[in-house]
Amino acid sequence: MATINKSSSWKILNTHFEKTKSIHMRDLFSKDMNRFKNFHIQYEDFLVDFSKNRITDETLNLLINLAKEAKFENWRDRLFAGDKINFTENRSALHIALRNRSNNPILFNGKDIMPNVNKVLNQMKEFSENVRKGKIKGYTGKKIKSIVNIGIGGSDLGPAMICKALKPYGTNEITPYFVSNVDGADIAQTLDTCDPESTLFIVASKTFTTQETMTNAYSARTWLLKYLKDQEAIKNHFVAISTNQIAVEKFGINKENIFEFWDWVGGRYSLWSAIGLSICIYIGMENFKELLEGAHDIDNHFKEAPLNKNIPVILALLGLWYINFFKFNTHAVLPYDQGLSLFPSYLQQADMESNGKFIDRDGKKISYHTGPILWGESGTNGQHAFYQLIHQGTEVVPSDFIMPIHSHYSIGKNGNEHHKILIANFIAQTQSLMMGKTNKEASLELKKQNLNQETIKQLTPHKTFEGNRPSTSILFNKLDPKSLGRLIAIYEHKIFTQGVIWNINSFDQWGVEYGKQIAKLVLPKLIEPIETSGFDSSTNNLINYTKKNI
Amino acid sequence: MATINKSSSWKILNTHFEKTKSIHMRDLFSKDMNRFKNFHIQYEDFLVDFSKNRITDETLNLLINLAKEAKFENWRDRLFAGDKINFTENRSALHIALRNRSNNPILFNGKDIMPNVNKVLNQMKEFSENVRKGKIKGYTGKKIKSIVNIGIGGSDLGPAMICKALKPYGTNEITPYFVSNVDGADIAQTLDTCDPESTLFIVASKTFTTQETMTNAYSARTWLLKYLKDQEAIKNHFVAISTNQIAVEKFGINKENIFEFWDWVGGRYSLWSAIGLSICIYIGMENFKELLEGAHDIDNHFKEAPLNKNIPVILALLGLWYINFFKFNTHAVLPYDQGLSLFPSYLQQADMESNGKFIDRDGKKISYHTGPILWGESGTNGQHAFYQLIHQGTEVVPSDFIMPIHSHYSIGKNGNEHHKILIANFIAQTQSLMMGKTNKEASLELKKQNLNQETIKQLTPHKTFEGNRPSTSILFNKLDPKSLGRLIAIYEHKIFTQGVIWNINSFDQWGVEYGKQIAKLVLPKLIEPIETSGFDSSTNNLINYTKKNI
Repeated sequence: MATINKSSSWKILNTHFEKTKSIHMRDLFSKDMNRFKNFHIQYEDFLVDFSKNRITDETLNLLINLAKEAKFENWRDRLFAGDKINFTENRSALHIALRNRSNNPILFNGKDIMPNVNKVLNQMKEFSENVRKGKIKGYTGKKIKSIVNIGIGGSDLGPAMICKALKPYGTNEITPYFVSNVDGADIAQTLDTCDPESTLFIVASKTFTTQETMTNAYSARTWLLKYLKDQEAIKNHFVAISTNQIAVEKFGINKENIFEFWDWVGGRYSLWSAIGLSICIYIGMENFKELLEGAHDIDNHFKEAPLNKNIPVILALLGLWYINFFKFNTHAVLPYDQGLSLFPSYLQQADMESNGKFIDRDGKKISYHTGPILWGESGTNGQHAFYQLIHQGTEVVPSDFIMPIHSHYSIGKNGNEHHKILIANFIAQTQSLMMGKTNKEASLELKKQNLNQETIKQLTPHKTFEGNRPSTSILFNKLDPKSLGRLIAIYEHKIFTQGVIWNINSFDQWGVEYGKQIAKLVLPKLIEPIETSGFDSSTNNLINYTKKNI
Repeated sequence: MATINKSSSWKILNTHFEKTKSIHMRDLFSKDMNRFKNFHIQYEDFLVDFSKNRITDETLNLLINLAKEAKFENWRDRLFAGDKINFTENRSALHIALRNRSNNPILFNGKDIMPNVNKVLNQMKEFSENVRKGKIKGYTGKKIKSIVNIGIGGSDLGPAMICKALKPYGTNEITPYFVSNVDGADIAQTLDTCDPESTLFIVASKTFTTQETMTNAYSARTWLLKYLKDQEAIKNHFVAISTNQIAVEKFGINKENIFEFWDWVGGRYSLWSAIGLSICIYIGMENFKELLEGAHDIDNHFKEAPLNKNIPVILALLGLWYINFFKFNTHAVLPYDQGLSLFPSYLQQADMESNGKFIDRDGKKISYHTGPILWGESGTNGQHAFYQLIHQGTEVVPSDFIMPIHSHYSIGKNGNEHHKILIANFIAQTQSLMMGKTNKEASLELKKQNLNQETIKQLTPHKTFEGNRPSTSILFNKLDPKSLGRLIAIYEHKIFTQGVIWNINSFDQWGVEYGKQIAKLVLPKLIEPIETSGFDSSTNNLINYTKKNI
């Protein structure tokens, strides 16, 4: 295939871009009273309003043509068929099987994998119920009150984000903790708040060799043994999510307490697998299944909805339009829900680890932009911080505004005062980013404040807003397990769609591997007594300086 | 003044850029064994290594010339002299007075403001000591065990970040909470964990009208009165940091429990003022003063050090070099310390609210790039997420790596195993980002794995790293109050320096004000019974849809 930026649909898009790039959304809205109607998708209780984007009907059609020219539909079929599309690791990417609630067979190397998926789900069900009911106890017979998930990256971000988001569904009897950073502060501060007799550690590492995770796991093990003084206690207080049975057993964990997952589950898609065990224990298996249901719904929507009504596809194409044509290289995710405050961090891995690539599937260096820098914080907090730049900076930041219409918390006047203010802020931001405030409007406002002519003239430009800053609004009924499952799957498939069009392998992560490799070279240098000299002068000096001062 | 990008020093820089932009740092290091020596600054226990940046001696000289042509030194003098450099609000920016531990007079409108600064510091000292000692009690006579800071933006991010960072210095007797989001979940979840009889609320709002803060404060007040059933209890459980005495007293707070601050303290510089009360209570006044000392040290360094040995100036110029010449428009802050995990969010406000501006001081639209999108997460977590993009994405992300050499936590083998691994990862990342891995190196590695020729050829490009990705390393001894004060002040002055060169007012925030203004227009529409039609079709539909479904 010719590189995508040499394709005819790309060239047509480029011409269209040059023609339309300066159009203000204000004018698009005033000319077309049906703009909202034409540019929104309602899927069940999900409303995706993408009318506040710098597109016309033609833009959308041309973008869809681009997706087709990139053989998107074919790649989507290959994803669902379990083809080894992660070719640099010779693996499939079958996270869709983990939430395949239809239970229709999914073949991998000619064999249906659903029985195995269901087997592990049943193991998770039984184990989590037994922990919740107090049947599984600590070594001294105490009920489990704290679960500590020790993992990093995909073995941490998903479960941590979800347990925070679904706190209203969590049991009050068990507190979930997440330890990821190798910085001793992370594990030490967590252990400080836990009682060894009632703490269960979940060690989540596919290979059971991840440096950060194993260092934390061994420190947790030392702590436990210091109190309980019997190696046998490890069996009661540690379980593993791993494929490395030998290493797990060597650690002291019972074979029955190993939860399996598979090569075809990528780390950043693993929350749907046994890596979700902490979620299961905290919110219960029924709720965990709802989460899977939600993702499965979106899998079907992604497979079946026409491209112009397909939520992940539309989000992907909008992103591509901004990244490759406008050259806006960041993307903000702004959840108007405190529960979703970890969602941007979660998506940073999902998106940037998948599409932060500069080599295409054919091994050629890419000459167009790929994955954006994804960032964000929960609104309204962000409004009082970085929104200044989104409104008046020299960079345009396309943003996703995400909000449940109902809150779990009845608080303030009429029980929903807080939430109404939150909604008002959400809508107001998308409105003002789009409309802006003209010089004339700003000047008029200042006149009403009875300022003198000179001050008005001086202040007006500073109170002027260009507007035309794009946003997409994603609303749904309530932040429940099913909605959250849907929301995550929407972004997963968005990322996949972009990766297909950019012709990259969204499923490997050699940049992460490289960092691990070098760290292993540096560590012994920090320990050996002689001065280091084998690296560049900066690295040598950093090593020798820390060695001298530690 | 001519706009800065038309200045002669800018033009010279541009020529220099065109000549040097493709040079690989690998080659700079191999040619110059003294590169580290020439490109690092040691200030007390702070080591700033900026040798892994895409600069030469000449670059640095030319950048310093640019700062001089922008009259940086003159603006710095004006900052310290209390000139009203925030001209759109007719205000000074005198946060340096708040930490002026020399106590030398600082004049504002011809009057020394230090006596007032010290008066409030003494009030904070007395109050915080009395809370810590249990002399200030709840309404029913119980000792205060929880403090809840209710504020948003500058009244939240600084104190929350610092209390997390300085946890090893915090008292175990009192837990600090921070409520900012108007989403009811934030206050509701916090109240769930507090006992009304032993909780002190600190309401932090300069005007005492901030919508989010006052909504949360009134919900906290309702909760308290529900339990304590006496309006008088408010006096024991609420204090205010505000300038609006009338509104505070109307709320029910005692006049003596109002902590003052001044017009010349910008929100994002307010942690050094009474807004730091929660910090004071948590870590004690002696430690709070150390924090001020640290910032004061850097104020002096910033004022006195020659520009080429001036940490904030160097960081500012490096940023400018990347933003305005390379057009790298984001900047990552990567603290290798779990305690600093909120530091990137804190800096998002400090930086993006200050320099996210497109109008210069003369009221003209700017034709060059200003403030970057600042983002980051604590390492090693980020390594397992978005570092993939930093290593192999199509965007280059200049990054600050920040790390204390000593940990507060003795854990793992020899008591410092965790910290050694952390340090190894830190150094390894800066090394590999700079060096990269050539095609030849990647191919050689694959050969050692006994793969066939075709596979090696296919995989090599994916395992190749271009390197030449810039980073600055900031090391210091330990994350104590003084170091943290220094670190924050370094960034404050960096941001100021960039704002000066970009010729913008770094001290206003009209983008934030605008959002507040529109939210007040939308809120009544969510309440009135008739359909809304006064906005664009997207905004109308979002309002009507939520109204119908809430």
